[in-house]
Amino acid sequence: MPKIVMKFGGTSVADLDRIRNVARLVKKQRDAGDEVAVVVSAMSGTTNHLVKLCNDLNPLHDTAEYDAVVATGEQVTTGLLAIALQSLGTPARSWQGWQIPILSDDAHGKARVDQIDGQKLLAAMARGETPIIAGFQGVTADGRVTTLGRGGSDLSAVAIAAAIKADRCDIYTDVDGIYTTDPRVVPRARKLEKISFEEMLELASVGAKVLQTRSVEMAMKHGVRIQVLSSFADKPGSLVVGEDEIVEKLVVSGVAYSVDDAKVTLRRVADRPGVAAILFGRLAEAHVNVDMIVQNLGADGTTDMTFTVGRGDLAQARVALEDVREALGYQEVLTDPAVAKISVVGIGMRSHAGVAARMFKALSERNINIQVISTSEIKVSVLVAAEYKELAVRALHSCFGLDGDEPPAVGEGQ
Amino acid sequence: MPKIVMKFGGTSVADLDRIRNVARLVKKQRDAGDEVAVVVSAMSGTTNHLVKLCNDLNPLHDTAEYDAVVATGEQVTTGLLAIALQSLGTPARSWQGWQIPILSDDAHGKARVDQIDGQKLLAAMARGETPIIAGFQGVTADGRVTTLGRGGSDLSAVAIAAAIKADRCDIYTDVDGIYTTDPRVVPRARKLEKISFEEMLELASVGAKVLQTRSVEMAMKHGVRIQVLSSFADKPGSLVVGEDEIVEKLVVSGVAYSVDDAKVTLRRVADRPGVAAILFGRLAEAHVNVDMIVQNLGADGTTDMTFTVGRGDLAQARVALEDVREALGYQEVLTDPAVAKISVVGIGMRSHAGVAARMFKALSERNINIQVISTSEIKVSVLVAAEYKELAVRALHSCFGLDGDEPPAVGEGQ
Repeated sequence: MPKIVMKFGGTSVADLDRIRNVARLVKKQRDAGDEVAVVVSAMSGTTNHLVKLCNDLNPLHDTAEYDAVVATGEQVTTGLLAIALQSLGTPARSWQGWQIPILSDDAHGKARVDQIDGQKLLAAMARGETPIIAGFQGVTADGRVTTLGRGGSDLSAVAIAAAIKADRCDIYTDVDGIYTTDPRVVPRARKLEKISFEEMLELASVGAKVLQTRSVEMAMKHGVRIQVLSSFADKPGSLVVGEDEIVEKLVVSGVAYSVDDAKVTLRRVADRPGVAAILFGRLAEAHVNVDMIVQNLGADGTTDMTFTVGRGDLAQARVALEDVREALGYQEVLTDPAVAKISVVGIGMRSHAGVAARMFKALSERNINIQVISTSEIKVSVLVAAEYKELAVRALHSCFGLDGDEPPAVGEGQ
Repeated sequence: MPKIVMKFGGTSVADLDRIRNVARLVKKQRDAGDEVAVVVSAMSGTTNHLVKLCNDLNPLHDTAEYDAVVATGEQVTTGLLAIALQSLGTPARSWQGWQIPILSDDAHGKARVDQIDGQKLLAAMARGETPIIAGFQGVTADGRVTTLGRGGSDLSAVAIAAAIKADRCDIYTDVDGIYTTDPRVVPRARKLEKISFEEMLELASVGAKVLQTRSVEMAMKHGVRIQVLSSFADKPGSLVVGEDEIVEKLVVSGVAYSVDDAKVTLRRVADRPGVAAILFGRLAEAHVNVDMIVQNLGADGTTDMTFTVGRGDLAQARVALEDVREALGYQEVLTDPAVAKISVVGIGMRSHAGVAARMFKALSERNINIQVISTSEIKVSVLVAAEYKELAVRALHSCFGLDGDEPPAVGEGQ
């Protein structure tokens, strides 16, 4: 019998009507002949309310007690969904992290799952009882409740799916799948039927936030097939799977953008060995994440160095750069937060040359100036002025043949 | 070092300001040199909200899942109070029923505590950390969460006090102690300094609902000294203790009343052996609780039987009486819900005769007709017409010397 994990986020269980709707979806999956385990988030709004109580008492609260408070949100949903399922005649039982157990480390508020014992869940499923599991939480070896950090319910679902060797992990959310790009920018964006873990990771890391990066990493590590679909629309979603399952490997399967970066240029840095080591070593010490890097050779023994940092880290970066001004002997620091990073991603790139060249041509035809370039095995990213973001995304979406036949009906993506 | 259990009800932790106030009370107790364990209820309103969610989904919900949902209310309070205490520099840690564990049977929604392991709590207290324990909940031997039924947090507190051999269990509530009678009826009611378990049980069972009967029974069984006091007034409350601690044993320590009963009279019942067995046997089968019973001998081979039942059971009682009409051959059934039961309670009664006589005289002087009388070792109860309730209570309160010097200031009792 196929084993399916179904995961429902906060908006899917926001009120009793939606919980009843989720119960019907679960019953339908069972009636189709599958063994089902369910992972749920807190009803939307609940977690924020509980977090606010802790913060109002003390912004520097103990994270272990924060976890004890916040984990109750998911517990409430598990009990309510179990009641809703039982009311449809479907045996169900709630499971908290400590009851399974989902063992985690003790990094309260952002714990990592160490180990999940699937035996009790499998026994329940074998006797026809659907486990309703609290997402976002675990328990330490010495019995304290932990939470896995924001978005942790996806991670819970994938980890549970790995532990019970599920055939698929269905992540129900308020979008109906993964798109070739943001439909708000490109109305002709198409829903992808399948995408590889690697592509999903590259897309997530540049701003397509359907799935949390950590849960995709875990799915890839354990070979858990994920489906992203809507709990409000009765149709298949998008599958995230291993490359071996993807027959037609697209050269470019998606176009992503991010406006979370800022560009930093050091003018006239002394061009001698060790300069880059000092510069990026100091930035790393200051916990500033550096992404794209480019260096232009100068003629007079100096060079210009350009790189991007997270926009929120810009102030931190300026302080760090001041610390090494003497050592590097640069002339001035220029910063520009008004930049957008545009990326094309596709596993077909590995066997196709010329993707970067096609990309640059498409952008130059629209007179979009490329400020920085970076490439990986399955991704090419460029930094452009922020005002060109939409134009660049649309140009690349067309150029790589991703446009659908016509725009989807308004609201269909919700 | 003295060990104190402090228990705070829902109104004492109703919002963050009150939780901060409770933290200050706990810190003060610790600063006085005591080892402290704290038991808390859910923030007032929370439990009702959670119960409503379960009922709205399905009025016939699974009680095990009801418990999983409802137990989260206390869990939130434990975490928040731990944070509030830590913010005052007082080490504290939340404890749920399953973490201690508080083992209960599996009668979900109204479970009974089987056993509490006090070792982890004692170890925490020994290292200077105050345990903040979720009241109202336990866990079954196979790891499912239970709740102990309404008012169960008092029971939790007394059971915890017994398990850790506490010197006293302080029950903080919204009244400042136990009174000789209801101050709303008798403004000159006095707060009792000490009262015995037995007296408290008799008073609770006739409507003075400061402490739940089950928690007083457990305190008596394990010799746990209880103090009832207000979390809003900084003064000592009333002690509930064993008789051996009470030097001056009052003949009457309190006057209680109840308007929860209805009177039933069977006219002209055949006066032969076995009649009472049939009558009260049938009522017991119908789960109708019978309290006071009186039988008047008739002259013609018949008799009138009068008894009281819970007012809510009256309809049920009528059906049961119809079932045995033929067997008993009674002429008619008269019922009267407009009655009040007035009781005087005191352990001094054991060694003092004449309490009933003084009581009847005081009532007759006010022309109050006594309908039924029942007595126990430390209690005399009479049934009177409901309209005489206040007059009777005031007459008895005066007659047994319970009146205070003058009425307390308005609102002092809150």
